[in-house]
Amino acid sequence: MINNKTFAQAFRNLRAKSPLIHNITNYVSVNDVANIILAVGASPVMSHAPEDTQDLLQVVKAVGGVLVLNIGTLDQQQVDNMFFAGKKANELGVPIVLDPVGAGATRFRTQTALKLLSTLKVKVVRGNMSEIKALIGLTGQTKGVDSVADESDGKTIVREAAKVLGTNVAVTGATDYISDGEQVVMVNNGVKYLSKVTGTGCMATALIGAFLTVADPLAAAAYGIAAMGLAGELAAETSAGLGTFRIGIFNNVEKLNADIILKKGKISNA
Amino acid sequence: MINNKTFAQAFRNLRAKSPLIHNITNYVSVNDVANIILAVGASPVMSHAPEDTQDLLQVVKAVGGVLVLNIGTLDQQQVDNMFFAGKKANELGVPIVLDPVGAGATRFRTQTALKLLSTLKVKVVRGNMSEIKALIGLTGQTKGVDSVADESDGKTIVREAAKVLGTNVAVTGATDYISDGEQVVMVNNGVKYLSKVTGTGCMATALIGAFLTVADPLAAAAYGIAAMGLAGELAAETSAGLGTFRIGIFNNVEKLNADIILKKGKISNA
Amino acid sequence: MINNKTFAQAFRNLRAKSPLIHNITNYVSVNDVANIILAVGASPVMSHAPEDTQDLLQVVKAVGGVLVLNIGTLDQQQVDNMFFAGKKANELGVPIVLDPVGAGATRFRTQTALKLLSTLKVKVVRGNMSEIKALIGLTGQTKGVDSVADESDGKTIVREAAKVLGTNVAVTGATDYISDGEQVVMVNNGVKYLSKVTGTGCMATALIGAFLTVADPLAAAAYGIAAMGLAGELAAETSAGLGTFRIGIFNNVEKLNADIILKKGKISNA
Repeated sequence: MINNKTFAQAFRNLRAKSPLIHNITNYVSVNDVANIILAVGASPVMSHAPEDTQDLLQVVKAVGGVLVLNIGTLDQQQVDNMFFAGKKANELGVPIVLDPVGAGATRFRTQTALKLLSTLKVKVVRGNMSEIKALIGLTGQTKGVDSVADESDGKTIVREAAKVLGTNVAVTGATDYISDGEQVVMVNNGVKYLSKVTGTGCMATALIGAFLTVADPLAAAAYGIAAMGLAGELAAETSAGLGTFRIGIFNNVEKLNADIILKKGKISNA
Repeated sequence: MINNKTFAQAFRNLRAKSPLIHNITNYVSVNDVANIILAVGASPVMSHAPEDTQDLLQVVKAVGGVLVLNIGTLDQQQVDNMFFAGKKANELGVPIVLDPVGAGATRFRTQTALKLLSTLKVKVVRGNMSEIKALIGLTGQTKGVDSVADESDGKTIVREAAKVLGTNVAVTGATDYISDGEQVVMVNNGVKYLSKVTGTGCMATALIGAFLTVADPLAAAAYGIAAMGLAGELAAETSAGLGTFRIGIFNNVEKLNADIILKKGKISNA
Repeated sequence: MINNKTFAQAFRNLRAKSPLIHNITNYVSVNDVANIILAVGASPVMSHAPEDTQDLLQVVKAVGGVLVLNIGTLDQQQVDNMFFAGKKANELGVPIVLDPVGAGATRFRTQTALKLLSTLKVKVVRGNMSEIKALIGLTGQTKGVDSVADESDGKTIVREAAKVLGTNVAVTGATDYISDGEQVVMVNNGVKYLSKVTGTGCMATALIGAFLTVADPLAAAAYGIAAMGLAGELAAETSAGLGTFRIGIFNNVEKLNADIILKKGKISNA
């Protein structure tokens, strides 16, 4: 079951556990990602060098943490770092979440994401519609790193993507769709304003990582995305503009609690 | 004509177009630069690796976007990335804006900026007085990346710089001067407080890039700088301090509209 | 003497001097570090490439500035950059402050910090309890980059660490301890909420760097940490949540003045 009740319980467990989330991520939203992980009640580590991640992943393993890979500002060195860390994480049994930022926009991004997915065991992939479409060879349109794809067929595409990629897939947009290849879960939290702040996708992916320490992948993807959406809704209520809204996201991820989740969460089966 | 009316019209066109701005920039202000591009109504892409920028620039070309180069935290690899992307942009006809951060402070910065300018066709260079002076061999004083030069002769220097460098030059300071080597435009928006926030120069340069998709270089430089200045003025009105002021910049770039521009814009011919 | 009065005087001198602080630091908190340096009244430069830092350090030397090294997101290249800049700084007589982020969490971090300390003359090292313990071979527990060590024996450990490492050591936690190997100074400013924002340790280290331009190392460490703690206390008073609190830190470092310091500073001899 994936619903507001299980979400609220997972949230309580997450706060109690305060898990360690290891991120190899881009230099654009890295500060926001670290702060959103702290806000949700987990501990972030950002590190990319093999000499460093090798030891870190032992600690992550010991405390039941997660590795989040994000290709937002990739180059060959960073790709190598991700493969090194990803293989080590697989050996140790540390779960991996992948954010294929900009897949479809460049061949380098599409191919890197696909190679990460074919080489590593990844628990959840989260992207927007054009990114996920690109990964399964459907023609998406990517304008930079923002999605412009039609979302009407989200349910079909997310299930197909999960089947083709052999992992749990989350497609975020006006409605978010999450699938393991069979079941499809929808999240209807969030506001359009979130797409006007850079890195909100990266932050959602990191929150999925945090929930993955206390829930199975399909549920964790739904909870992470819903947590980000709820924070966006609440931040928009008191926002004086885009800058204030962005700061409000952190306020409201921190303020999240079981009551808010039970009252405002919008998770449903598609 | 470059005045509040043309500025207001360019702003409307910019919001309607939502152009793609590709940035190879420093890791200090990169998040702020992405968010200011979103706030003004454009779409940011931050990417540095040649494998990636090659494909990205094709997209940027297709949608009429711009490439912004910023040497704020340069090293040899990043310099190579900028030359690769810059040459590709020139081949494709994608306009380039350059921010020579810290020119004059180190030989590496001065020489890199000059080599970029002599190798690439650059549409606009924006810097503070000491940076621009350094590029034309005048003795400026640079204290770190902050300007300490006398600005009294701004009009003369900006025109001279535009002639010597063979491009449009913008010198930002208490008064901003922009020239194509003949005409000189002044902008008197802005507040001193902007210099207490890191990256406001980088953000102004990115806004010039955004306006360059809807205006000629001389006008785009004036509009980008005036937009930043207006946002600073409005943010200062309600600021509770430096942190709040910084967030207010994003609020107010987003809230910018033709009315505010017509009422408060201070663009004039020098 | 190190007390509120000397702190208030040093703060006035810092504002009058507006010193240049050169940072080779991590890409997570680099923007916050630059902005906190501006907020306290100093000028930041962030640069890592040897070609660049060589010239920059001449400027830093000329104006009586400081070099801050922070290993928050290290890799071999960045380590090389730190050694290059550190040796140059030592040659020129530019004081160095070191933040050994994550020492104890990985061998790479511990060994890099120790090698920096044995190769370079460092004026102040600031870390949390587990980082400092790791540097002197005591078993600390590091959970990512956050301290979980018992702080009851802070006074003993900081004095021991200063003796073993042959430099001034600052251990930040619920109570902060600073020692030169003989004297121990305590700071009791700050709020627990500071540990929920990424980079507050990095910012404290940068503030130590700023005060080191107007005070001796033991005093500068106390003032920098107390300034951060005071800003945290004041920010917490009006905070609407974690995001707002973080912004309030910048507001309140900027608003700091001799009155606040004399009234609320909590510096004492241990």
